[in-house]
Amino acid sequence: MAKNKILIVGGVAGGATAAAHARRLSEEAEIIIFERGPHVSFANCGLPYYVGGEITEKEDLLVQTPENLHARFNLDVRVMSEVTAIDPISKRIEVSSVNSNDKYWQSYDELILSTGAKPLKPPIPGIDKPGHFTVHGIPDVEAINKWITTQKAHKAVVIGGGFIGLEMVEQLQKRGLEVSVVEALAQVMPPLDPEMAGWLHKELQANEVTLYLEDPVTQFNSPNKENPATASIVELKSGNLLPADIVILGLGVRPVTELAKIAGLVIGEKGGIQVNEFLRTSDPHIWAIGDAIEVQDFITQEQVLIPLAGPANRQGRIVAENIFGNSMKYTGTCGTSILRLFDLAAACTGVNEKTLRRLNLPYDVVYLHPPAHATYYPGAHRLAMKIIFHPDDGKLLGAQIIGEEGVDKRIDVLATALKARMTVHDLEDLELAYAPPFGSAKDPVNLAGMVAQHVVHHDVKNAQWHEIENLNTNQSILLDVRDEDERSQGFIPGSQHIALPELRQRINELSKEKEIIVYCQTGQRSYFACRLLTQKGFKTKNLSGAFRTWKIATNKMAHKKI
Amino acid sequence: MAKNKILIVGGVAGGATAAAHARRLSEEAEIIIFERGPHVSFANCGLPYYVGGEITEKEDLLVQTPENLHARFNLDVRVMSEVTAIDPISKRIEVSSVNSNDKYWQSYDELILSTGAKPLKPPIPGIDKPGHFTVHGIPDVEAINKWITTQKAHKAVVIGGGFIGLEMVEQLQKRGLEVSVVEALAQVMPPLDPEMAGWLHKELQANEVTLYLEDPVTQFNSPNKENPATASIVELKSGNLLPADIVILGLGVRPVTELAKIAGLVIGEKGGIQVNEFLRTSDPHIWAIGDAIEVQDFITQEQVLIPLAGPANRQGRIVAENIFGNSMKYTGTCGTSILRLFDLAAACTGVNEKTLRRLNLPYDVVYLHPPAHATYYPGAHRLAMKIIFHPDDGKLLGAQIIGEEGVDKRIDVLATALKARMTVHDLEDLELAYAPPFGSAKDPVNLAGMVAQHVVHHDVKNAQWHEIENLNTNQSILLDVRDEDERSQGFIPGSQHIALPELRQRINELSKEKEIIVYCQTGQRSYFACRLLTQKGFKTKNLSGAFRTWKIATNKMAHKKI
Repeated sequence: MAKNKILIVGGVAGGATAAAHARRLSEEAEIIIFERGPHVSFANCGLPYYVGGEITEKEDLLVQTPENLHARFNLDVRVMSEVTAIDPISKRIEVSSVNSNDKYWQSYDELILSTGAKPLKPPIPGIDKPGHFTVHGIPDVEAINKWITTQKAHKAVVIGGGFIGLEMVEQLQKRGLEVSVVEALAQVMPPLDPEMAGWLHKELQANEVTLYLEDPVTQFNSPNKENPATASIVELKSGNLLPADIVILGLGVRPVTELAKIAGLVIGEKGGIQVNEFLRTSDPHIWAIGDAIEVQDFITQEQVLIPLAGPANRQGRIVAENIFGNSMKYTGTCGTSILRLFDLAAACTGVNEKTLRRLNLPYDVVYLHPPAHATYYPGAHRLAMKIIFHPDDGKLLGAQIIGEEGVDKRIDVLATALKARMTVHDLEDLELAYAPPFGSAKDPVNLAGMVAQHVVHHDVKNAQWHEIENLNTNQSILLDVRDEDERSQGFIPGSQHIALPELRQRINELSKEKEIIVYCQTGQRSYFACRLLTQKGFKTKNLSGAFRTWKIATNKMAHKKI
Repeated sequence: MAKNKILIVGGVAGGATAAAHARRLSEEAEIIIFERGPHVSFANCGLPYYVGGEITEKEDLLVQTPENLHARFNLDVRVMSEVTAIDPISKRIEVSSVNSNDKYWQSYDELILSTGAKPLKPPIPGIDKPGHFTVHGIPDVEAINKWITTQKAHKAVVIGGGFIGLEMVEQLQKRGLEVSVVEALAQVMPPLDPEMAGWLHKELQANEVTLYLEDPVTQFNSPNKENPATASIVELKSGNLLPADIVILGLGVRPVTELAKIAGLVIGEKGGIQVNEFLRTSDPHIWAIGDAIEVQDFITQEQVLIPLAGPANRQGRIVAENIFGNSMKYTGTCGTSILRLFDLAAACTGVNEKTLRRLNLPYDVVYLHPPAHATYYPGAHRLAMKIIFHPDDGKLLGAQIIGEEGVDKRIDVLATALKARMTVHDLEDLELAYAPPFGSAKDPVNLAGMVAQHVVHHDVKNAQWHEIENLNTNQSILLDVRDEDERSQGFIPGSQHIALPELRQRINELSKEKEIIVYCQTGQRSYFACRLLTQKGFKTKNLSGAFRTWKIATNKMAHKKI
């Protein structure tokens, strides 16, 4: 076979996987990995937990070392070696030592770019102060740990409420720091829709984290006598001044494409290296994988950047297969991801509502709040689920789930269903494992299918939480069918109250002229009420997600005077 | 609509669901549920936990009461009412009071049989003694609790190692009883293959439960002075005599079909009521659901009995739809189920190897033992997974998983993949949620797909644990590629040892004339070694599941003399 020399730029996740898999396909090939940093194949998703102390040994973060990659796979791993140029005509790269002025050229038959992504650092005045850190490699978290200890840091300000930002919030708070999060948008966790992010806002508050939303940083000021701190005084657009003994910058990442540009490779419109479905770049002997590339969202067909470890690993394997003459396709992404934030897990897969609205694609939405396991078995907590599907054929488009248990399970089932292009009807049919400690005879995923199917089949019309904000009371009635004790805990202003068990008797209190929007606590009883009223000739809508979704989304409540 | 009167025989699970769903489709219909017992719609899967004290309130087991079913759904629920005859010509049933001699006939437009299953009680001498209990309804567990208390029961003997048997073992042991399990077969949990059941045997031992395998009960003797006990002296085929203060009979269930037979309905060859895909029996106005019916295994197309709550609930909804003129199909079962046994969960979906062998269908098997979440994050435990697939196209046929965490998640993903008729290649491609507390960048399901794909693509040949029992050492070498410290903990007798990192240097110690069966601890390094050796011209096989599967399957080990 002619593929004698395979060079790989970047060793973390995808790069190391590609190298190891290439060796399994060829004992003869010369395989060299170049890594700019001191570590090859470290656990970058574990970095926050090394700060919080859940992971105590640095060695645990080192998934592979150059030595064992050599021993096991006969790989030549060169750390502290930055690839500074590519000459695609002569098929060679320039390698520069990070620690010295040494440079050399190395030729290749096939080149794999696994250059990754790097943290965004917008030009905010003062952003480069000591005590400001990004979380990108092991040296970063070592520096953070050292800073916290030596500076006796007490107040932390985290800029950005995405994955890394919130994982650092949790870990810094667990380490005993007083933590604030600053977010320019109106919500944390951009992959979620805003009303679902509301559950995370609540969880941050419950854990005494101060959250600044829609309030971007304007500058980082130097501390002074009036505003003492060991790192900086973070100034927000609102004028708020936050003293910070340490600042964590979690402002997202951008693909590292400098080398690709030097080589003249085509860059996509989202700024990542463009590859075809076989992960080949515009040069036939250069391949690219991981956070540096653009991939296709297999639902919307949009090009997207997905800086996640799972896809990178998958791509590493595929590229090795293709280099050795196979034709394995990367079938695209649905962006499945999960975050733990204190007692909650928040996960999503597929497309969110924001994106569908932006792309002007048809969709419908249901919310539900099923218990994660049978309620008669102790310890059941309710999930908050949002299911997005095509209004005509019920094809699943996306899902978001937040809760204290069983979130990862349901999102993985839904990610599998998405990959299989299942409909909400198929979700209803899934035969999932049930014993009281693990689930329910009707699993939350089955229930999600049922609830969505009611909408697809026009068994019930849904109203969404944002539609009842300015209700025209001449045309619509808001009807609360919960029990008295639930209503006494709070209700939607302006709603009429008839508990479901009384509805058949008191049906004459309702007008057939007006549209009746029914709600209960979680959405099940209001559906029953809608079916009852519809059959009796009333015009009804079911408030999807019911009081729970409305409350978290609007964060308002009328309290009954007693 | 003409469906004015719907009668439902049996209220638990499927029956109550059918009734409630029928009401959502028709406010006008008269819907009556007849239940022989005192409770409608109770949580039968929760019964063992009421004995163990995890569920403390009997009310928690009562999912619905006649009163709230009436209030919410306008259902007429008649408990302690046994249906004793069906007259399909006149479309009426005979109802007999359980507490009196009252009888009456009730006419129907459509009749739903949800008669369930009842515990098997084989004619073993002495089986009907006081202190012997089945676990079928709330009165059973109340009687068990009372017996344990009043008799100060100390020694429990559980007959049968299926779901109910093992759940009762766990709960009785947690309640402080000394527990033995008696099983006629060579393994507990028949849905698992025997080598996978080995993990449960080990878990029982670790929890000081005495396990008698392949040792059926021959009779239940009365206690006497020499053998005192409050229930009986259980005599086994081996001659063992087990004093029992309480005996739990967990010998499986059989469908209740007496009424169906009275009505002249067709009974299937497995002994359940025969229904078509719309759940209609051989009489056009009689429908049947739940544990009483036979359904189709959608993988093997065999008729099977699946006494599980999930399918029963699903069928309840479907039958209501079909009675009101829709054409909703029950798409068959894959028997997904899960058991918790002390610290382990054991789950399966699809077909097991025993069944495939019996049906003489083509299949291949891989075992793997991936950690349930990233190993660098604390608390990771290894899963034991068995994946069964078609040898030609890699289509998934079944899966069995045992472990301490994340078992339910992976079996549900695989059940979803089965329903979508995915291949092992598709499993590799799934994009599942990863953050260190929840999983790995390569999830166990992805890894399962990879490992199986290696076999489908002939990247490696597998040997199974039972093939190395009587290895011809003239033709084959068994090669251990683990590290020295692993080998010192135990190895397969007769194996040669070259640790993987030394293999390239010491390759000349191996013979190209013989087949080399390679093993490591979990199966990954042996795969690497096979790829290496195959490329160098050796004939190799990878011992699937490696030392871990071999050890649990054979329960033997050679200890190195130090």
